[in-house]
Amino acid sequence: MARLLVMYKTPRDAAAFDRHYQDKHIQVAKKIPGLRKYEISKGAVGTPGGPAPYHLIAILHFDDMAAIQTAFGSPEGQAAVADVQTFATGGVDIFMFDHADA
Amino acid sequence: MARLLVMYKTPRDAAAFDRHYQDKHIQVAKKIPGLRKYEISKGAVGTPGGPAPYHLIAILHFDDMAAIQTAFGSPEGQAAVADVQTFATGGVDIFMFDHADA
Repeated sequence: MARLLVMYKTPRDAAAFDRHYQDKHIQVAKKIPGLRKYEISKGAVGTPGGPAPYHLIAILHFDDMAAIQTAFGSPEGQAAVADVQTFATGGVDIFMFDHADA
Repeated sequence: MARLLVMYKTPRDAAAFDRHYQDKHIQVAKKIPGLRKYEISKGAVGTPGGPAPYHLIAILHFDDMAAIQTAFGSPEGQAAVADVQTFATGGVDIFMFDHADA
């Protein structure tokens, strides 16, 4: 399995961000082909030293790294990326990796 | 459920890091009370623009945020934290959050 971490930095307007994410982005992202599971953080993101600079973290599950590449080359993946540009006013960090149980 | 992301930045000596992580840290971390699942990245961590500044990402699963707090207050949690200091020569970013399926 592979994971895609989408880490949204604190946006300019958190309420507007949350509204867009819940009302629109989830529906757009769920159409990405090959997406097996889609988890999002609820409430504040913390660090051992206090609040994190991230407002929301999404963990998307795919079969493998090739599936992630295919997904983001698809029209649905491109639509999700385009949508992110409209509400991620604080920026976003994206990481992808194959993984296994330790 | 809650997640703990442990994101290791590129270390000074990747081979030494990998050796310590595999041979020692996994065993130490698996003793953390309340740990439900422990996943680690395999191979390179990528971003849409190329290689990530992270060498390894671990995703630890706990029942909730309180369980994470309890875990890191325990002797086993403190031992895992102390072990991290010995091999995470590039630094480490740690994030924790409650989560749900989107």
